[in-house]
Amino acid sequence: MQELPDVQALAPDTKFKLTRVGISGVRKLVRVRRPKQKTDFVLTTTFDVAVDLPPTMKGSHMSRNVESISEILEKSTTDPVASLEDLCLQISKDLLRRHDYATEAQVKASADYFLERKTPFGTMSTEWYTLLAEALAKRGDGSRKLVGVKVTGTSACPCAMETAKSLRNDATTGPGLTHNQRNLVTLLVEVPEAEVVEADRLIDLVEASQSAPTVELLKRRNEGELVLRAHEHPKFVEDVVRGVLSGILEAYPKLPDESIIFVRSVSEESIHKHDAYAERETTVRELRRRST
Amino acid sequence: MQELPDVQALAPDTKFKLTRVGISGVRKLVRVRRPKQKTDFVLTTTFDVAVDLPPTMKGSHMSRNVESISEILEKSTTDPVASLEDLCLQISKDLLRRHDYATEAQVKASADYFLERKTPFGTMSTEWYTLLAEALAKRGDGSRKLVGVKVTGTSACPCAMETAKSLRNDATTGPGLTHNQRNLVTLLVEVPEAEVVEADRLIDLVEASQSAPTVELLKRRNEGELVLRAHEHPKFVEDVVRGVLSGILEAYPKLPDESIIFVRSVSEESIHKHDAYAERETTVRELRRRST
Amino acid sequence: MQELPDVQALAPDTKFKLTRVGISGVRKLVRVRRPKQKTDFVLTTTFDVAVDLPPTMKGSHMSRNVESISEILEKSTTDPVASLEDLCLQISKDLLRRHDYATEAQVKASADYFLERKTPFGTMSTEWYTLLAEALAKRGDGSRKLVGVKVTGTSACPCAMETAKSLRNDATTGPGLTHNQRNLVTLLVEVPEAEVVEADRLIDLVEASQSAPTVELLKRRNEGELVLRAHEHPKFVEDVVRGVLSGILEAYPKLPDESIIFVRSVSEESIHKHDAYAERETTVRELRRRST
Amino acid sequence: MQELPDVQALAPDTKFKLTRVGISGVRKLVRVRRPKQKTDFVLTTTFDVAVDLPPTMKGSHMSRNVESISEILEKSTTDPVASLEDLCLQISKDLLRRHDYATEAQVKASADYFLERKTPFGTMSTEWYTLLAEALAKRGDGSRKLVGVKVTGTSACPCAMETAKSLRNDATTGPGLTHNQRNLVTLLVEVPEAEVVEADRLIDLVEASQSAPTVELLKRRNEGELVLRAHEHPKFVEDVVRGVLSGILEAYPKLPDESIIFVRSVSEESIHKHDAYAERETTVRELRRRST
Repeated sequence: MQELPDVQALAPDTKFKLTRVGISGVRKLVRVRRPKQKTDFVLTTTFDVAVDLPPTMKGSHMSRNVESISEILEKSTTDPVASLEDLCLQISKDLLRRHDYATEAQVKASADYFLERKTPFGTMSTEWYTLLAEALAKRGDGSRKLVGVKVTGTSACPCAMETAKSLRNDATTGPGLTHNQRNLVTLLVEVPEAEVVEADRLIDLVEASQSAPTVELLKRRNEGELVLRAHEHPKFVEDVVRGVLSGILEAYPKLPDESIIFVRSVSEESIHKHDAYAERETTVRELRRRST
Repeated sequence: MQELPDVQALAPDTKFKLTRVGISGVRKLVRVRRPKQKTDFVLTTTFDVAVDLPPTMKGSHMSRNVESISEILEKSTTDPVASLEDLCLQISKDLLRRHDYATEAQVKASADYFLERKTPFGTMSTEWYTLLAEALAKRGDGSRKLVGVKVTGTSACPCAMETAKSLRNDATTGPGLTHNQRNLVTLLVEVPEAEVVEADRLIDLVEASQSAPTVELLKRRNEGELVLRAHEHPKFVEDVVRGVLSGILEAYPKLPDESIIFVRSVSEESIHKHDAYAERETTVRELRRRST
Repeated sequence: MQELPDVQALAPDTKFKLTRVGISGVRKLVRVRRPKQKTDFVLTTTFDVAVDLPPTMKGSHMSRNVESISEILEKSTTDPVASLEDLCLQISKDLLRRHDYATEAQVKASADYFLERKTPFGTMSTEWYTLLAEALAKRGDGSRKLVGVKVTGTSACPCAMETAKSLRNDATTGPGLTHNQRNLVTLLVEVPEAEVVEADRLIDLVEASQSAPTVELLKRRNEGELVLRAHEHPKFVEDVVRGVLSGILEAYPKLPDESIIFVRSVSEESIHKHDAYAERETTVRELRRRST
Repeated sequence: MQELPDVQALAPDTKFKLTRVGISGVRKLVRVRRPKQKTDFVLTTTFDVAVDLPPTMKGSHMSRNVESISEILEKSTTDPVASLEDLCLQISKDLLRRHDYATEAQVKASADYFLERKTPFGTMSTEWYTLLAEALAKRGDGSRKLVGVKVTGTSACPCAMETAKSLRNDATTGPGLTHNQRNLVTLLVEVPEAEVVEADRLIDLVEASQSAPTVELLKRRNEGELVLRAHEHPKFVEDVVRGVLSGILEAYPKLPDESIIFVRSVSEESIHKHDAYAERETTVRELRRRST
């Protein structure tokens, strides 16, 4: 069998290093076994993986990225991974091994996730979320892992509520008419390699910071109760982000100072065609330094 | 210059006719001059055009579709078209001329559209909409044109409003707490070739059928007034569709019986992760026959 | 406990019937057990369900749609469904039972699907597809079910191949330079209620009609072989649709004449910013009538 | 008229500063007059604007963002802006004036853009692109502006070309069979406030770095010529990024060292279901330092 040319290893026309070279939109089934749960669950996961490239090489060997994901997942069919973020971490380290010219490897994953929830009025409901996970491995300099979620809840505007009361000469302090809408929160938290942060608990934290969770099945009475709950907890996008930041500090007092936190809250405004949003990207150190 | 082979005209491997063969996602600037307006306006328009194909031909000559759109738009730079739907009609007829093997030609167009509006509280606001247009030409059997719009407004739920009142022991009949959210309406109306239906009037009809319009700039007082207006006009997605149907019958008493009407209303529910929708596709004849 | 008002049952402002009222974007996990396979698999599925509404009712009881899906899926955790289309059929019949005012119920479902495939060069690869399923139940008039797939493959243009040969004075008849790109096929086939059509076989039919399948992992030699294969089978979007139609007729000789067939092939042209597409929507009867 | 409460100015429940609070998806028409061109053109533009928020304030006054965009665009109807990036810069400075509590303001804009191009074979064609612009104003610390484009071209794979030659025992060095596909490039360049970088020239640079441009209208001969051109210039995603980096350094020798450059090239692989990508984010200083 003739030997095939290694075009990637040729010298490029112009010698610039590249920050990230890789593949995106790779879809795979991932079998996860959470430490405290009895049964496995399977996640339809989308991966985005990349390594850097030195100025001396024309191309990165792209098929090694697919091989890395596939071989690690192959092993996981008999020995399920503990979490999506641990899987990302494992892949990121393996990428550095396969791409010996690379100094950094980055892996991102997202997956549909279904969770049995107790609703605010006591019924049970299976709700849909998105799991997020990231890992970054640096040659000779350790690695980082991040765990996160995307959560769709409800936000009711506190400003319009007070204005509408004024316009109606209503001097009460309880809930009042206001605009409300879908509120989408994205949360990512860096966690030490050996630590576990449960995505389910992150979902709890986010839903506790929105005006109300969204619920799939609402019979008439429960629908009314959810509406009341949302109006009893009016929230700006800013309030939602701060609520999540505060919840993270309280729930995870042992998170290292250098852990990265990212929170974004988007309200798909019912009174505008555009969205409103607030976000904070910071470290746990910065959050702990806040005036209180 | 050597002659190039006409691969499209070859016999196909299997002789099936095809319903539609064409191109989609063609973006062009279109200059429109409305009969009653002084100045032209320019629309960033996306086209989807197709013709049918007989069983005897391997392929349709796709580049003729681009030529048709481009040449007609070229002419329109000096002599602007009267409307997007008239342009679609012109292209559909031209496609039949260019594809002599075709018996039908279909053209669809959509474009961002900006309209100066008087808000419910008297301020002026430039709002964003989508214009829709379609044409279908049949060889030896005339042609049809449709004009339409997509409109983002607000819907406030009438059911949750009554339930929430009951739960709060509120026996009043006016506005009350409820969930509200973005409501997206798609409307398409078939219009005789020589007739004109103004998209601006269709937008009026749709916004009058929603709980309230969405408005780009809302200072505090106006935001409160818009919230009150939405709660004074609670609407199911069903109510919105019926309001539009009723509005069309009243506003266009001369529409022929065979005119097609399509209305779809989607509420991006603030209390659920899924959407609610209602739609009606019918003819003006069917609408006029309704029990009243 | 006070009784809550049934706002949906009120008379609407204007009495038009509605074609479809329902919910879309409902995400659920579905456990499927294929008759001939040993293990179950789980599909992350998105549902769109609707019923019609008489002119006398203000609203449809939307929560009954969620109840129907949830209760049927609840049962399926112990007794998995045989297929996505059988599940849709079951839900559509149940919707008619729950909405006693409705005369029609429509259910659509789509799900990510992963299939272990033998590649053209003998390696094994797990590839990603989309499963499609639909059902329509009419009161007193039976029901229909459709099964389908979405498949991403490769198309290489036969016209540019011949032109490029001419321009290069290449008189050979084998493969030559041409543009190639992703080709997305959507296929839906109506199947009698008691019959089974395997989605896996539909995927086979589609991939056999494209220039080549797409393959996740391609080491250098296999990548070259796949490129050769695509160039040995140049296909217009029209060829792809006809290949699928022909394959369906051959593979399913017992399909009833009235079965609906829909095939759409879209090439995301590498030489244009727009797409090219071909489609046929017809019945098996019409396909069998073709001149051959 | 009663005074309405300023809920935004209240103290928040938890005192964290926020990185960005604003609105996204604001659509507006922008009239631009390029210094060297005779006629104005109008861009359908989408804005994303935000400011930071101190820990002491519950909310940002969102409507001021809309007011800022609207008032500046209002002025531009009589006195058109010179470019989208200058408009972003103007808005970012105005946002700092309106939000006196903010220390930073960020504005991003994107717009469909149509450009009359000479094709590689001498015909003229109007092609569709996306313009990008960004500005960041810091209180007491000047401001930055970035100009950019998104360009859809063709990439033909150099590796598969050599492999396919080997497999066919073809020892020639010219073009050969390979996979090719759409290649999407995103380019952003920071430019000193008083300098002008023409987006049209950036488009030139990008298209010169891809295997071939995409062209809307291709009659048979031109289609063949474009295919040949793409195969004569095979490019990895890595080659495309480096070509653009090299082109920027040559075309703009006076760009300051601290100017930010971002280039991303994505190939929608015709042989895979996933995409391949390469990117570099750096400063002009780093690029100039490269080994050559």
